[in-house]
Amino acid sequence: MTSSSSPSSPALGVGLIGAGRMGSFHAATLAHRLPGVRLAAVADPVPGAARGLVDRLGAPAAAYTDIAAFLADPEVEAVVIATPARTHAELVVAAAGAGKAVYCEKPMAVTLAEADRAIGAARAAGVVLQVGFNRRYDAGFRAAHEKIVRGDIGTPHLLRSLTRDPKLADPAPIPPWTVFLETLIHDFDTLRHLNPGATVVEVFALADALVRPDFKERGLLDTALVTLRFDNGALATAEASFQAVYGYDVRGEVFGSAGMLTMGEVRRTHLTSYGPEGVGAECVGYDQDLFRDAYVAELADFADSVRTGRAPSVTGEDARAALAIALAAIESVRTGGPVRPAPAAETAAETAAGGHG
Amino acid sequence: MTSSSSPSSPALGVGLIGAGRMGSFHAATLAHRLPGVRLAAVADPVPGAARGLVDRLGAPAAAYTDIAAFLADPEVEAVVIATPARTHAELVVAAAGAGKAVYCEKPMAVTLAEADRAIGAARAAGVVLQVGFNRRYDAGFRAAHEKIVRGDIGTPHLLRSLTRDPKLADPAPIPPWTVFLETLIHDFDTLRHLNPGATVVEVFALADALVRPDFKERGLLDTALVTLRFDNGALATAEASFQAVYGYDVRGEVFGSAGMLTMGEVRRTHLTSYGPEGVGAECVGYDQDLFRDAYVAELADFADSVRTGRAPSVTGEDARAALAIALAAIESVRTGGPVRPAPAAETAAETAAGGHG
Amino acid sequence: MTSSSSPSSPALGVGLIGAGRMGSFHAATLAHRLPGVRLAAVADPVPGAARGLVDRLGAPAAAYTDIAAFLADPEVEAVVIATPARTHAELVVAAAGAGKAVYCEKPMAVTLAEADRAIGAARAAGVVLQVGFNRRYDAGFRAAHEKIVRGDIGTPHLLRSLTRDPKLADPAPIPPWTVFLETLIHDFDTLRHLNPGATVVEVFALADALVRPDFKERGLLDTALVTLRFDNGALATAEASFQAVYGYDVRGEVFGSAGMLTMGEVRRTHLTSYGPEGVGAECVGYDQDLFRDAYVAELADFADSVRTGRAPSVTGEDARAALAIALAAIESVRTGGPVRPAPAAETAAETAAGGHG
Amino acid sequence: MTSSSSPSSPALGVGLIGAGRMGSFHAATLAHRLPGVRLAAVADPVPGAARGLVDRLGAPAAAYTDIAAFLADPEVEAVVIATPARTHAELVVAAAGAGKAVYCEKPMAVTLAEADRAIGAARAAGVVLQVGFNRRYDAGFRAAHEKIVRGDIGTPHLLRSLTRDPKLADPAPIPPWTVFLETLIHDFDTLRHLNPGATVVEVFALADALVRPDFKERGLLDTALVTLRFDNGALATAEASFQAVYGYDVRGEVFGSAGMLTMGEVRRTHLTSYGPEGVGAECVGYDQDLFRDAYVAELADFADSVRTGRAPSVTGEDARAALAIALAAIESVRTGGPVRPAPAAETAAETAAGGHG
Repeated sequence: MTSSSSPSSPALGVGLIGAGRMGSFHAATLAHRLPGVRLAAVADPVPGAARGLVDRLGAPAAAYTDIAAFLADPEVEAVVIATPARTHAELVVAAAGAGKAVYCEKPMAVTLAEADRAIGAARAAGVVLQVGFNRRYDAGFRAAHEKIVRGDIGTPHLLRSLTRDPKLADPAPIPPWTVFLETLIHDFDTLRHLNPGATVVEVFALADALVRPDFKERGLLDTALVTLRFDNGALATAEASFQAVYGYDVRGEVFGSAGMLTMGEVRRTHLTSYGPEGVGAECVGYDQDLFRDAYVAELADFADSVRTGRAPSVTGEDARAALAIALAAIESVRTGGPVRPAPAAETAAETAAGGHG
Repeated sequence: MTSSSSPSSPALGVGLIGAGRMGSFHAATLAHRLPGVRLAAVADPVPGAARGLVDRLGAPAAAYTDIAAFLADPEVEAVVIATPARTHAELVVAAAGAGKAVYCEKPMAVTLAEADRAIGAARAAGVVLQVGFNRRYDAGFRAAHEKIVRGDIGTPHLLRSLTRDPKLADPAPIPPWTVFLETLIHDFDTLRHLNPGATVVEVFALADALVRPDFKERGLLDTALVTLRFDNGALATAEASFQAVYGYDVRGEVFGSAGMLTMGEVRRTHLTSYGPEGVGAECVGYDQDLFRDAYVAELADFADSVRTGRAPSVTGEDARAALAIALAAIESVRTGGPVRPAPAAETAAETAAGGHG
Repeated sequence: MTSSSSPSSPALGVGLIGAGRMGSFHAATLAHRLPGVRLAAVADPVPGAARGLVDRLGAPAAAYTDIAAFLADPEVEAVVIATPARTHAELVVAAAGAGKAVYCEKPMAVTLAEADRAIGAARAAGVVLQVGFNRRYDAGFRAAHEKIVRGDIGTPHLLRSLTRDPKLADPAPIPPWTVFLETLIHDFDTLRHLNPGATVVEVFALADALVRPDFKERGLLDTALVTLRFDNGALATAEASFQAVYGYDVRGEVFGSAGMLTMGEVRRTHLTSYGPEGVGAECVGYDQDLFRDAYVAELADFADSVRTGRAPSVTGEDARAALAIALAAIESVRTGGPVRPAPAAETAAETAAGGHG
Repeated sequence: MTSSSSPSSPALGVGLIGAGRMGSFHAATLAHRLPGVRLAAVADPVPGAARGLVDRLGAPAAAYTDIAAFLADPEVEAVVIATPARTHAELVVAAAGAGKAVYCEKPMAVTLAEADRAIGAARAAGVVLQVGFNRRYDAGFRAAHEKIVRGDIGTPHLLRSLTRDPKLADPAPIPPWTVFLETLIHDFDTLRHLNPGATVVEVFALADALVRPDFKERGLLDTALVTLRFDNGALATAEASFQAVYGYDVRGEVFGSAGMLTMGEVRRTHLTSYGPEGVGAECVGYDQDLFRDAYVAELADFADSVRTGRAPSVTGEDARAALAIALAAIESVRTGGPVRPAPAAETAAETAAGGHG
């Protein structure tokens, strides 16, 4: 025998806020799937929610209902925010204010002012701020980005990104404009990411309540089609539906001067069945099936960013840019015409500083 | 031996106008591929063109440079028009006026007035008028239509149709707006056909010269993205490029309340190759590869319509409706905002009659 | 007007023997699908069969019940044989003896002696003899052959070819060993064709009555798996079933030192459907769907061979070589061990000549 | 705050023997990927190998060069064996003798006597013995098995399983018969698993040195094709090559009386590229890419079996049955004819008991 292992550097303590569906997945990742990372604490204002999650995971982590207490826990070196969208920006500001590195689920904010405050707070605190555009970490989308950056398909001319959720269980709690702010925000980021360096200068959106017309008067739109024009000439569509009966459908396409790339996989496995009805396969039913590895990879990347001090791969500015497109799309639906998105906030730091003053 | 075959009914004599690329294909179909049909004559104003085509085919057909003489030939019972787009409507009117059944390549017309005249002329003459939306005859698109009509995917919510031509050899002779009037006209018809009974009520178009920016000042747009809204709520995109380096790419997608259909095949054959570079296949390079069977089927259907007297499957009104969308798209590009297409001409007959008066 | 077309060379008169399923398809091809070819006559011993086929086609062709009279018809310059397999060789000998070029459906013969007589008769008469291995004319298989000849995948190491017919309607009239002599004979030819220049030196076969065990005692085997070793070291399998509930399934695979090729398409069209059950497509149900173009192409090639006098692309020797493998497979089933196929008949000409002496 | 988490049951301590390529993967799984499991120790006779692996993983595990000391470590409750194949059975016997649950990489043994000793030792010790047929844990193959058990494709008639490794770096250290004992052993297990309840009664094998003919005289065969007959009539092929230039290729096919299933995925991601050369995708290059999730799942299943005391999912008897087929294939190559595999050892317990006596 050659003796027991010498300890390597201590694991990074990460705390999670929000013990819901996505939060539970992230908690399991932090507890079990990332070498050098440990789940230090979970916070959720719902009594028992954080405790229940910690117990289910069998993780030696603290459980909080009070966010301030959670943020004061010195074991929590970095924070993962997986709460409802409307609370994100405020929590980013609070976590950054407490000196914690922050990973925030998309959308980071639902107004540009909020986005600027969040970006400013992280900048002021000098902490990492990463946003949950997980598709960038998916193997296929990532390889597409690499090929595009390398010039394999020349200059992008026509792009497409779509998101179709598998079912619309209960539309009642869904806020208006969710299709733009929470669903298509992914596609807007994907389109920006796959047309690197270009800026969206025109947005035209059509949206309707086709899945649940009975919720239209409450403002719930469940189907949307958005057209974008970039400043390098590229034209793009982003498309969403809240209900694809066949499963969870996320695809992309980039057509360029020298080739095309398509991304997306609706098949659950590599099994194909042949019978009297024809040839077929089962579809992916759930985002956590399709993007399981991407969800893990983005937190691994976040942890690496925190440990090494390098800039995060997906920034608050990325979140703001996608939000600006989403807000332009909403404005387009309201006005019935094309809209130019708000420009990037070059002065985000000053704005936020001013907001603090 | 039981004696020689008794003659069946004599073959339908069809004359072709236009000995170009598409005309040559149709001529070969009429000469060799359709039982009960014969190529009776070819007309082309270019000296020697009609004669050369007839000789290459080895067909016992007359050759004309004068259209009037061609139309006066009693052997020509029906006419196939495959000339440049700007001449179509006038030729439909002339052929119908001569009492011939007419098959006209798309677009049947490039203005609504022209379209109405063509429709009116055929109606007044009581002759069949069929238009060359060949994709309706493609096995995959046809099966899609059948499934949609049967309700297999419920109500269409989101549709897509795209056309990418394989190369842009010489843009000089291409008229402005061709991308809408000659290319996307196919996609507008496809989208109408796959959302049966619905009418387009809003059109928003973006277009640019991305393949050949040097031709932009001449008005040549080679890349376009059009968004449509139908009166049943469905949202659609039509997308075109004049240059796909990988080949000829025509695809469709219809997403409905109860399922989705996708159409399109870029692979030339069922051969797949695996090597150090990965797995791959060759692409279709040419519309006459991809739609060969569809091009034959549409002329067979036309001949059947002429022989039996039944209404044609693709009508002048279909051509007019697709044209109205194309014209709205052009107007949208000009104005920068959404446009409502001209309504269907309920009074097309009267208008045309009036035009005759 | 520039006058009527001058006649090109007169069309090649081709006569068909056998008005069954395959014969009817070939008759339609000869009557309507091949420029420069005409259906001159049809012969079938069943009263009314030839006449009925000619009438259905509306072709100006003679109809015979007597083969000798048919072969004496001077309008018949070339003969297509599409009768039951056991009659093929005899008809080849008769047609060649009458000085006609011959296309014979596979298998050209069911014994090596028959094969040698057929080859010898064609050689003695100096007429073209082509055999119906239609897969060589399929676009995918043909492209595979071209790539292999060009060296794209290096030296073949492992090959596979399979045939699964869509249904087993009535096994009663099927002769024993059909699975080898009529079904797998295609695969044996494919494997030879895709391993160019190599010779099969060992055959091991397993076969059983799995679809219809009740017919096993009559000698009907409906499922077979054959292993081949070539003299260049390549190993291969040929696989057949008389009943694939999902449709007609023909596929191939060639794995070589520098890459792999796969061939085969079970999908009927490019339409894909997505629904609660998953993603799927309809399958090809029928050989005349899958190989329609190949069936036409092989007769076009035959006609070209007859007109130009060049050697046919698929020869009597090819038929004999595939038959030798099939006979070795039958012997392997009988003996339970591997069998070396009979060598190619270098002396086929002499043998046949001797048979004539 | 609601206090720190109460400890759940202590993690299962698992020790690994063999710090090579596969062992390193399993060690990372045990250290980081399985809730409720910890890597307790690593043993490898090569000085520094175990220590290096432990250090790379940053795991608090002991490192041993002496197996006996490793087996005496009370922290090691279960053992994962990932050493060269020839050492497996002996290590199973030793680990079982030390009262440890055992997971052994395939092949568990290379002779039937060894296999019986290993099975007998585990039985005598009353410990779990699981074998590393990881494909059973792959999502596609697992779903295939479920469908077959459920009867979705009726009775299997024709099966196929193949393994092609991506490259043959240095054939020098590869023992003769490896293609059967270490590669095709996977396929033999897959074929047994996908034809549940049936027994292989006949084996015919062809094998050659086609990738590296220069190693043939040393007995190294790198290409093999094996035909099997099962007692339920099903016919099967297993096929292997040591060098697929396009990547790692594992596929399966089961054709039954009521349908067909195919399994296998050569594409690395869902990204597809289109360019002047055609359409293509990158291939999987490495088994640990293709079967990453399956490798994790099998150890999770092993841990569950150890913790709950239930029988393992893949047993020593499964290993023995696949070995019997491999040995029959070797015998077939030696004799040139078909071979009947040794029957299952109903008396394995007694044999092993006798061996202990």
